[in-house]
Amino acid sequence: MGLNEFILGLTNLEKINRAPGFFKFTEHTVAAHSYRVASIAQVLGDIEEVNGIDVDWKMLYEKALNHDYTERFIGDIKTPVKYASRELRGMLQTVEEKMTDEFINQEIPREFQEIYRRRLFEGKDDSLEGEILAVADKVDLLYESFEEIVKNNPEPVYKEMFVESVQTIKAYSHRPSVSYFFKEIFPELLKVDFYGKADFLEVIDQVLAE
Amino acid sequence: MGLNEFILGLTNLEKINRAPGFFKFTEHTVAAHSYRVASIAQVLGDIEEVNGIDVDWKMLYEKALNHDYTERFIGDIKTPVKYASRELRGMLQTVEEKMTDEFINQEIPREFQEIYRRRLFEGKDDSLEGEILAVADKVDLLYESFEEIVKNNPEPVYKEMFVESVQTIKAYSHRPSVSYFFKEIFPELLKVDFYGKADFLEVIDQVLAE
Amino acid sequence: MGLNEFILGLTNLEKINRAPGFFKFTEHTVAAHSYRVASIAQVLGDIEEVNGIDVDWKMLYEKALNHDYTERFIGDIKTPVKYASRELRGMLQTVEEKMTDEFINQEIPREFQEIYRRRLFEGKDDSLEGEILAVADKVDLLYESFEEIVKNNPEPVYKEMFVESVQTIKAYSHRPSVSYFFKEIFPELLKVDFYGKADFLEVIDQVLAE
Amino acid sequence: MGLNEFILGLTNLEKINRAPGFFKFTEHTVAAHSYRVASIAQVLGDIEEVNGIDVDWKMLYEKALNHDYTERFIGDIKTPVKYASRELRGMLQTVEEKMTDEFINQEIPREFQEIYRRRLFEGKDDSLEGEILAVADKVDLLYESFEEIVKNNPEPVYKEMFVESVQTIKAYSHRPSVSYFFKEIFPELLKVDFYGKADFLEVIDQVLAE
Amino acid sequence: MGLNEFILGLTNLEKINRAPGFFKFTEHTVAAHSYRVASIAQVLGDIEEVNGIDVDWKMLYEKALNHDYTERFIGDIKTPVKYASRELRGMLQTVEEKMTDEFINQEIPREFQEIYRRRLFEGKDDSLEGEILAVADKVDLLYESFEEIVKNNPEPVYKEMFVESVQTIKAYSHRPSVSYFFKEIFPELLKVDFYGKADFLEVIDQVLAE
Amino acid sequence: MGLNEFILGLTNLEKINRAPGFFKFTEHTVAAHSYRVASIAQVLGDIEEVNGIDVDWKMLYEKALNHDYTERFIGDIKTPVKYASRELRGMLQTVEEKMTDEFINQEIPREFQEIYRRRLFEGKDDSLEGEILAVADKVDLLYESFEEIVKNNPEPVYKEMFVESVQTIKAYSHRPSVSYFFKEIFPELLKVDFYGKADFLEVIDQVLAE
Repeated sequence: MGLNEFILGLTNLEKINRAPGFFKFTEHTVAAHSYRVASIAQVLGDIEEVNGIDVDWKMLYEKALNHDYTERFIGDIKTPVKYASRELRGMLQTVEEKMTDEFINQEIPREFQEIYRRRLFEGKDDSLEGEILAVADKVDLLYESFEEIVKNNPEPVYKEMFVESVQTIKAYSHRPSVSYFFKEIFPELLKVDFYGKADFLEVIDQVLAE
Repeated sequence: MGLNEFILGLTNLEKINRAPGFFKFTEHTVAAHSYRVASIAQVLGDIEEVNGIDVDWKMLYEKALNHDYTERFIGDIKTPVKYASRELRGMLQTVEEKMTDEFINQEIPREFQEIYRRRLFEGKDDSLEGEILAVADKVDLLYESFEEIVKNNPEPVYKEMFVESVQTIKAYSHRPSVSYFFKEIFPELLKVDFYGKADFLEVIDQVLAE
Repeated sequence: MGLNEFILGLTNLEKINRAPGFFKFTEHTVAAHSYRVASIAQVLGDIEEVNGIDVDWKMLYEKALNHDYTERFIGDIKTPVKYASRELRGMLQTVEEKMTDEFINQEIPREFQEIYRRRLFEGKDDSLEGEILAVADKVDLLYESFEEIVKNNPEPVYKEMFVESVQTIKAYSHRPSVSYFFKEIFPELLKVDFYGKADFLEVIDQVLAE
Repeated sequence: MGLNEFILGLTNLEKINRAPGFFKFTEHTVAAHSYRVASIAQVLGDIEEVNGIDVDWKMLYEKALNHDYTERFIGDIKTPVKYASRELRGMLQTVEEKMTDEFINQEIPREFQEIYRRRLFEGKDDSLEGEILAVADKVDLLYESFEEIVKNNPEPVYKEMFVESVQTIKAYSHRPSVSYFFKEIFPELLKVDFYGKADFLEVIDQVLAE
Repeated sequence: MGLNEFILGLTNLEKINRAPGFFKFTEHTVAAHSYRVASIAQVLGDIEEVNGIDVDWKMLYEKALNHDYTERFIGDIKTPVKYASRELRGMLQTVEEKMTDEFINQEIPREFQEIYRRRLFEGKDDSLEGEILAVADKVDLLYESFEEIVKNNPEPVYKEMFVESVQTIKAYSHRPSVSYFFKEIFPELLKVDFYGKADFLEVIDQVLAE
Repeated sequence: MGLNEFILGLTNLEKINRAPGFFKFTEHTVAAHSYRVASIAQVLGDIEEVNGIDVDWKMLYEKALNHDYTERFIGDIKTPVKYASRELRGMLQTVEEKMTDEFINQEIPREFQEIYRRRLFEGKDDSLEGEILAVADKVDLLYESFEEIVKNNPEPVYKEMFVESVQTIKAYSHRPSVSYFFKEIFPELLKVDFYGKADFLEVIDQVLAE
């Protein structure tokens, strides 16, 4: 029992695919996704601060870095699950949480258990930092799905992912970082050329106007 | 010009291999390495704090997360370079730095340039957080090379990497987190069985005793 | 609604890894595993018949071919799960079963639903064919783990898998096909040379003698 | 000499690609193809039975499962061969058959040789089960080529494969399972959206009307 | 010190990707690229000879085969480098050359050093053979980028590569092999069908007419 | 009809594996193998020349570069074929040759057909250059199999390949380049450390002494 097992888990996450079976051109590991979400959260945090908002950076980095660590236990199976009712997703959630609990009891030294309980259980709460994490997680999904769209992957799931990401991000439009995102970053992303761009932009404009 | 290009760079790092050609059983991307180093720095930071040291968490996370971002420009070629004098390594370093500078000027909005200059240029300085980053970077290399050793990869380079990591970490043994690492985490890692373990442990004991 | 979705599921199983993260030298998909188990069951069925036992071949092939189809829903996560109590494994089982049920209701035409319910729910029951399936599933695991052992994969998990397979197969030693397996097939498999063979054989002999 | 070598061959088929160099988005192994063909044959057999036809299930499963086992000897080179006259294809066929014969003599115990001769030599004969196998083999090719088409793979070979599959399946339209396939399964498959769908459907309609 | 290290370098080049991160559908190693360039140079040399030009075949093969050997030292990083001024590219060039020099001094026996200095330093000089190499190198890039275009890779970089290749080859149109290439080989390559072909051909016609 | 199809074949060879299923740690394509054999032939040619032998460099490079081009037709299936008598190997050889003939007739312009007939049919004849090619081909196999041995691949096939390579090379010991190889290059290769080295060297010494 010690922290060795926590560190070994980081290597596991390098081998676990995010939303397995979904991404075709570039597959993503949970480790790389966590890195990108933490870096995007950092971008968003900067913008909040430039707009006069106080950011608890320790909380923000901690939340973003650890938000998917528990996927080491049963992988990222919640995303692609088809034929699953809300109840079944809840059961999978429960299994993950109980295994996390067991992991902390078995592997984390007592003096650090409380810290890990916070890190592995709390994430997208309604604090400022929880909100930034929720946005950063969707910004990453937006970039991931956009890469597939730009590379002509015709499966409709990517447009659905993209639209759903835009909608979720928009729900946080009271945040200065979200306004900035839609005003300065998003249009730059959309500059690139791809098949079906005109139709795609029309759908996005509609979503943004809703 | 905006932050879109910075975010696209995160995806690049998901496709750039760390020390290309070195690791055989598990290849590592720069993105996954950055995630692991940030998480290991977090482990070490916890230990420092439990020992009464004040950690500037914002600095620590920021340093760890961004310390290899500039590898998007020419990849991770400094590590495996053979036949290179100190002078040639210096030239590669200069190329990377000049490209980083050019990137910040071209792609980062003026109000954030100073922040990115700090993030992309300063890393393993002699602050507490710089020291923790230096240790975390080597702890990750230690785990990476150990995985190859345990899986019977016979190339001597892994033992050299492992020994060099131990030596570098040991150089920071004034840090409570380093004492804790050698006392609590390292022995647990070494519990696993592998061919040639007895000889290996002897070498390590010698290095630790030096 | 129709059988198209069942056929598309066969392609899914070509992309889902068996015991993800476990096998290093050769990864196995659920589709390939199902093919091998059906072919091994066929070998065992022949032996039973030569020994005067009546085999219901339709049942045998059907059981073997379909025994892991339901892994299309949440992947093969039951095998590698660590930190999971019996209760948690039960919950994962329930999730899989409920999704299978939902799948049959949504996707299979009414006139075939009963057939699919039999195929996707009943497997290793205590019929002759259920027993052969149970043996064939373990024979396949035995060959898979042996390949890793022969190729010097030092992780102890393969020896554990191998021993566990031998033990489970042995539990069916009232079956003529199992006697034949241990007398004619197993010794031929063990002829190949590998590091640590002497120690390995000793352990196996002990398991067989228990 | 024994059945061990037959089982080892199953693992070989997990590593041999089907039509090597042909499929781009998803590569298929001979093992996975055999699994899918057996499962599709099972679907077609069900439909025959519901239509009052007696199916010899043992024969059907056996034929489907083993129909490509002999590809372990020289791989799947007959499909992609260019510049080959009918005569050269015949020579490759002969090589494969002679090696199969040699394999049975060398590796299969005498009491099972006759069974294996039937399994490895007879396949798409003009029995009911041989016809279902011929259809199932093409249905699988149809799904494989359709996946490439849907994912925008522009090489004309996939349309040729798809059309050729439709034509071959159609030649068996006296089978109730083929009528059912074109009436209930095929239209569902074609519901998905993809570039050039209108032109594609026109070609298919023409083929079906011929 | 001896020639063993030169031969080991050939294996390195089998593991080093050409223009890493650029090609999506088919990745190319430096070894395979060198093979193709040497074979294309051979095609061009034949055409020159049929047109009455004397080819120094030893020089031609030698130049083509060895022209990228020095990429074993820092990989193929000069092609994809973004944000790099002419000066920075020059520095990378210098690093590569100094390492090549060091390699020859350390690893090549004295009696062969002069030969290797010629092989590893001189390439696309203004001799006939140097010109053929320059053309062959671009013909290969043209085929590589065309494969991506034909397979619908929408990133504009491939069209840019293709156009730049055509322009560079055209600059050598005083060579009979280049006239032959544009008259006999190029039109055959362009016969294949792909999305956006009409627009593409228009651009190419314009480039050829310039 | 033109040379476009010959150039496209070079890309095919980039995707065809050498001795498929044999090499575990590094897979080799026919394209990369051809590059390495041509480069090794160049090393051997240099040594011959330093020893006063006249080398026809055009012939040497041409033979080495093209010696496996015809594997584009049925892949590299002659090497790994098991259960094949001398007669069956001969039939495969005939198939390959007839397809090569057909290819030249269909795809190569008349004025170049004779050249290609020489390149694609004549190889390891008993000229000086044919002998060097025969040696270079085995030196490459020796390095390939040695890499597997050094990396602990325990399958006996690599030692068999290595020994067979040494024996074949030794059969040409009247060539100065072979003497040089065994005196200067081979010992340097064997300096590296690996499991079972002592036993391995003993076997090799015996082979060399025969």
